[in-house]
Amino acid sequence: MKEIHEKAREMMKGYCRVCKVCDGRACVGEVPGMGGLGTAASFKNNVAALAKVKLNMRLLHDAVSPNPGTTVLGYDLDFPVMAAPIGGVSFNMGGGISEEEYADAVVGGSKAAGLIAGVGDGVPPFIHEAAYAAVEKSDGHGIPFIKPWEGDEMDEKFEKARATGCKVFGMDVDAAGLITLRQMGRPVSPKAPEELSKIIEKIHGWGAKFVLKGIMTPDEAQLAVEVGADAIVVSNHGGRVLDHAPGSAEVLPSIAGAVSGKIDILADGGIRDGVDVLKMLALGADAVMIGRPVSVAAVGGLQEGVEKYFATLKGQLIQAMVLTGSHTVKDINAHVLFSV
Amino acid sequence: MKEIHEKAREMMKGYCRVCKVCDGRACVGEVPGMGGLGTAASFKNNVAALAKVKLNMRLLHDAVSPNPGTTVLGYDLDFPVMAAPIGGVSFNMGGGISEEEYADAVVGGSKAAGLIAGVGDGVPPFIHEAAYAAVEKSDGHGIPFIKPWEGDEMDEKFEKARATGCKVFGMDVDAAGLITLRQMGRPVSPKAPEELSKIIEKIHGWGAKFVLKGIMTPDEAQLAVEVGADAIVVSNHGGRVLDHAPGSAEVLPSIAGAVSGKIDILADGGIRDGVDVLKMLALGADAVMIGRPVSVAAVGGLQEGVEKYFATLKGQLIQAMVLTGSHTVKDINAHVLFSV
Amino acid sequence: MKEIHEKAREMMKGYCRVCKVCDGRACVGEVPGMGGLGTAASFKNNVAALAKVKLNMRLLHDAVSPNPGTTVLGYDLDFPVMAAPIGGVSFNMGGGISEEEYADAVVGGSKAAGLIAGVGDGVPPFIHEAAYAAVEKSDGHGIPFIKPWEGDEMDEKFEKARATGCKVFGMDVDAAGLITLRQMGRPVSPKAPEELSKIIEKIHGWGAKFVLKGIMTPDEAQLAVEVGADAIVVSNHGGRVLDHAPGSAEVLPSIAGAVSGKIDILADGGIRDGVDVLKMLALGADAVMIGRPVSVAAVGGLQEGVEKYFATLKGQLIQAMVLTGSHTVKDINAHVLFSV
Amino acid sequence: MKEIHEKAREMMKGYCRVCKVCDGRACVGEVPGMGGLGTAASFKNNVAALAKVKLNMRLLHDAVSPNPGTTVLGYDLDFPVMAAPIGGVSFNMGGGISEEEYADAVVGGSKAAGLIAGVGDGVPPFIHEAAYAAVEKSDGHGIPFIKPWEGDEMDEKFEKARATGCKVFGMDVDAAGLITLRQMGRPVSPKAPEELSKIIEKIHGWGAKFVLKGIMTPDEAQLAVEVGADAIVVSNHGGRVLDHAPGSAEVLPSIAGAVSGKIDILADGGIRDGVDVLKMLALGADAVMIGRPVSVAAVGGLQEGVEKYFATLKGQLIQAMVLTGSHTVKDINAHVLFSV
Repeated sequence: MKEIHEKAREMMKGYCRVCKVCDGRACVGEVPGMGGLGTAASFKNNVAALAKVKLNMRLLHDAVSPNPGTTVLGYDLDFPVMAAPIGGVSFNMGGGISEEEYADAVVGGSKAAGLIAGVGDGVPPFIHEAAYAAVEKSDGHGIPFIKPWEGDEMDEKFEKARATGCKVFGMDVDAAGLITLRQMGRPVSPKAPEELSKIIEKIHGWGAKFVLKGIMTPDEAQLAVEVGADAIVVSNHGGRVLDHAPGSAEVLPSIAGAVSGKIDILADGGIRDGVDVLKMLALGADAVMIGRPVSVAAVGGLQEGVEKYFATLKGQLIQAMVLTGSHTVKDINAHVLFSV
Repeated sequence: MKEIHEKAREMMKGYCRVCKVCDGRACVGEVPGMGGLGTAASFKNNVAALAKVKLNMRLLHDAVSPNPGTTVLGYDLDFPVMAAPIGGVSFNMGGGISEEEYADAVVGGSKAAGLIAGVGDGVPPFIHEAAYAAVEKSDGHGIPFIKPWEGDEMDEKFEKARATGCKVFGMDVDAAGLITLRQMGRPVSPKAPEELSKIIEKIHGWGAKFVLKGIMTPDEAQLAVEVGADAIVVSNHGGRVLDHAPGSAEVLPSIAGAVSGKIDILADGGIRDGVDVLKMLALGADAVMIGRPVSVAAVGGLQEGVEKYFATLKGQLIQAMVLTGSHTVKDINAHVLFSV
Repeated sequence: MKEIHEKAREMMKGYCRVCKVCDGRACVGEVPGMGGLGTAASFKNNVAALAKVKLNMRLLHDAVSPNPGTTVLGYDLDFPVMAAPIGGVSFNMGGGISEEEYADAVVGGSKAAGLIAGVGDGVPPFIHEAAYAAVEKSDGHGIPFIKPWEGDEMDEKFEKARATGCKVFGMDVDAAGLITLRQMGRPVSPKAPEELSKIIEKIHGWGAKFVLKGIMTPDEAQLAVEVGADAIVVSNHGGRVLDHAPGSAEVLPSIAGAVSGKIDILADGGIRDGVDVLKMLALGADAVMIGRPVSVAAVGGLQEGVEKYFATLKGQLIQAMVLTGSHTVKDINAHVLFSV
Repeated sequence: MKEIHEKAREMMKGYCRVCKVCDGRACVGEVPGMGGLGTAASFKNNVAALAKVKLNMRLLHDAVSPNPGTTVLGYDLDFPVMAAPIGGVSFNMGGGISEEEYADAVVGGSKAAGLIAGVGDGVPPFIHEAAYAAVEKSDGHGIPFIKPWEGDEMDEKFEKARATGCKVFGMDVDAAGLITLRQMGRPVSPKAPEELSKIIEKIHGWGAKFVLKGIMTPDEAQLAVEVGADAIVVSNHGGRVLDHAPGSAEVLPSIAGAVSGKIDILADGGIRDGVDVLKMLALGADAVMIGRPVSVAAVGGLQEGVEKYFATLKGQLIQAMVLTGSHTVKDINAHVLFSV
């Protein structure tokens, strides 16, 4: 990974410093770029909330060879991780590789690792076009996330995405409120439950599933259940839309308390290594999404970089499962969390 | 804003560093100047108390185009913000522009932005003279704040202020205790309720309103109601009079709990962007006052600078309202605050 | 004060950096010297515990000219402050002035300021000799503090101190445990209540009073009452004897809760300015002792330096009383403390 | 000690900086080396958890000459400290001295100080061979700790260790989960209670005792009692196996609450000086183990270095006992802990 990081540091110059600890401090306010919006409090809160969690170490058991496999949104995953939907290589990551190379690396690397990737959306058409091409090349093994556009754009995007053969569709409703997009005549906005119900009904009619990204409160998690979503992603959009949102790990337990068992719960935000994955699961997630570290691995090492990152992650997760006495991901619950 | 800040940084050299994050650390003890008194704990507490507040992000709703307008002290404001009363450009800000230019920029810029400015007072006559001239030029659209002088000076100042045609008068009683002024033979002091009652009665007799700045406890907020004030400003005077006062955001909820609905509640201290405005409203304020950032904008860009700052602020506030599901400022309450 | 500090910084080179904020970080472990023992946690805790305290600012009252005077241990003080007993100029402060000059500056400066100084003790005879000479010169206006020696040394020291004409005697029992002294054949040790009773009885027989320095728990404060002490000093000896003791401001409220009204309560540790004095009083002290800042003022400006420091302190205290609505020191209680 | 540290700093270059405060920040992730795994959160938590503990200073008593002696695991110790089992001088400490020199220094230095040392284990045979040779040379005065190997290796190691004449055997089960070892074909793993019972039965059959290192929860402490262990070591393996484990001082009180009196409780992690020893005892330990500081002393000064470190430690512990009023180690309990 060290070489990949060095390569990425070079290629992302001016966009990402590939810090030793990726915590949002070096890139405050860099949107576009890889940073958090404003004071980057939401980005930092993601990392800080996870860092605060401490784990019960246990060694008197027989969880010698844990199984990290799981099933989420109908997919059997080698371990409970997905790549988060990210696009805009040119203006966010420095453009050292093309949008196509990026999408191929993330989608292909995830599949090779026994996982699945979300793919991104944006104003310039080449973002979703590169993303959908990668999913199609991968026989539909990817989850297109569509921004909460107003008007016809959303329906058109869902149709385009459908052509990739994918079985799950997502919407990152947390992208709403980007006033710049509205000013560019491409408005995005929050979505009322009724509108979401209709969209989800249509997608279910296609025999596909729907995941709603950007849930940060128990009441909206409950709404997501009511409108028929198959999964939510607890996410503050990497701290890039609302300054001073809590870290996702802070809100996850109350959200899990409200909807666990009724809907698949994913979470992203600040996850860097396998111990972080285990923490999110212990806090109530069924699986996690990972953003920036996957982007860095893709820019620094293309598909091979993504695969290496995921391999490292899996090893760390298994070690953490051994050291917390977790035979399977189902055993990763509040029992592994230290509290005073 | 970047150019304005660069210009200001140059012009305020030795008085204000125009830091990326204006939090009171670089200018500890710089009074006169732009800093906090002593260890600057009160200044820092203002910023820290606001930074600690986290917001519930919500996207499943139809608050797509929120209305940030409000009415405070009889004024219809485009959004719930006023410029705080500040004077003394020469000894506090380096004197790069004149007191007149400063007052015109703040009063004019606020009016152009659909807002209203408080204007300051001080020992040298040119401070209030420049301020009152600006208000008069603005057809009385400004709020003169008079220091809590002892003896005749206070009455004389109120009469002078009246001549501007203003409809609201203020007193920053938090300026009391400045022993230096007393030693210069120009004593200021706390004001007993009976004395305040008489002042306010007189002002009400003029058909005008009265706002009392410097309330930091629920008991004194209650006293402000009893003496007939129309509004209070929760404020520790920017941390410039008593070291180790709490941040205004810390005391605001209990003050709002005591007098909300009985009196208009304003608050200042550490507000930097639109998310901070929303936080103060959620904590119980009806509107906020903003000090240092307005001063920096005025010094760096005159009226245009102030207008640009307020335009940015309004955009940020609207975005924050969208992302917290707030249709109007009345919807910005404890519901948008994250708590564990 | 600025000149005095510059002079002191020069003269104390290698012993004290006369930091802008004197908080124990620059001089970690420097004993001898001016630092805290070991990791200096106790020194830092003193400062941090005081810094954490926040004050209610109040301005709607008539406490325009507060009276900071008080009576402690039978002495009428202009304001509730004493100089803490410190000695060993040569090995703790760099020896830029002599022990005699130091003692004269502190004792004389305190008296001139309407206060009284404690004076120190140590292994080399010149420490207590210089101290007692200063008290004698001051017509007995000083409080000799004697270390908790084992054997005859303690009685001899009390007799010597008596010859100064002083009316109050102290013991800094917190100096016990200095194993180095024991190894030099000059053992100090904790004192059992029975032994203290006898000492205090003797001193009361002389028509004098006794103050016990080094109380950090309510149970030992209660013991101090039982053995007949007239006052205690809540103190961790400036963090110089036991690493990781709490700050005195942390333990003061529970100690005051146990013995307030039964005995005079003094406190030292981390007090730097008049606001800190007010805080200690609000937390339960009847008066405070101040160590390092007085030493720095004495080394940097002799008696004049000490007087200037105390004058500044008094002004700050009065301003803080005005801004918290405290007419007298009796009004400085929990009412002025902010709590969430 | 200063010279020893300077020597060590030189010899451990690239492996340990011999920082003034050894807290895990300079060597983040350096495994092999002397650092903590990953973000080193577990290493840092050890130090931070101890630093947070504050002590009640008491001086009104007769604990003038405390006795720090104790009996643990059948050994009479001059004070309640053991050297932690550490090996791998070449890859962890820079190889400035040989494994034999290191083991001799630690085992011999501990014995000379009236203490006893644990000795380490590892993949290369020379680690345990050097360790066992040192114990044998010391007439069995040492505690061999064997890693939780799978298969025959464990039994063989216990037999080899038996040949040293030692009376106590240990297992650092916290070394499990080191996937690298497994990949090298030398798997270690957690141990189920049944397996431990058999091992302990065998060792008891030899007339020896057994200590289980790596307990971090009350439930596993209870299991340790049930399988017949004679002692546990509360330890997160110096933060080298699971990132984000709590500090041992954080978990110790609840573990002591569960098994105190049923089994000897040792603890390691972040102990640097005599005050830290006293803290661990106050939190519930019967004795402590010390790792890194002993290693540094051994590399920097061989047996003499270890002896000097322990002499310093003993002096600090006695002073802390004096200043907390503790006659014996049995008096060091929650009574000496400050809590708000």
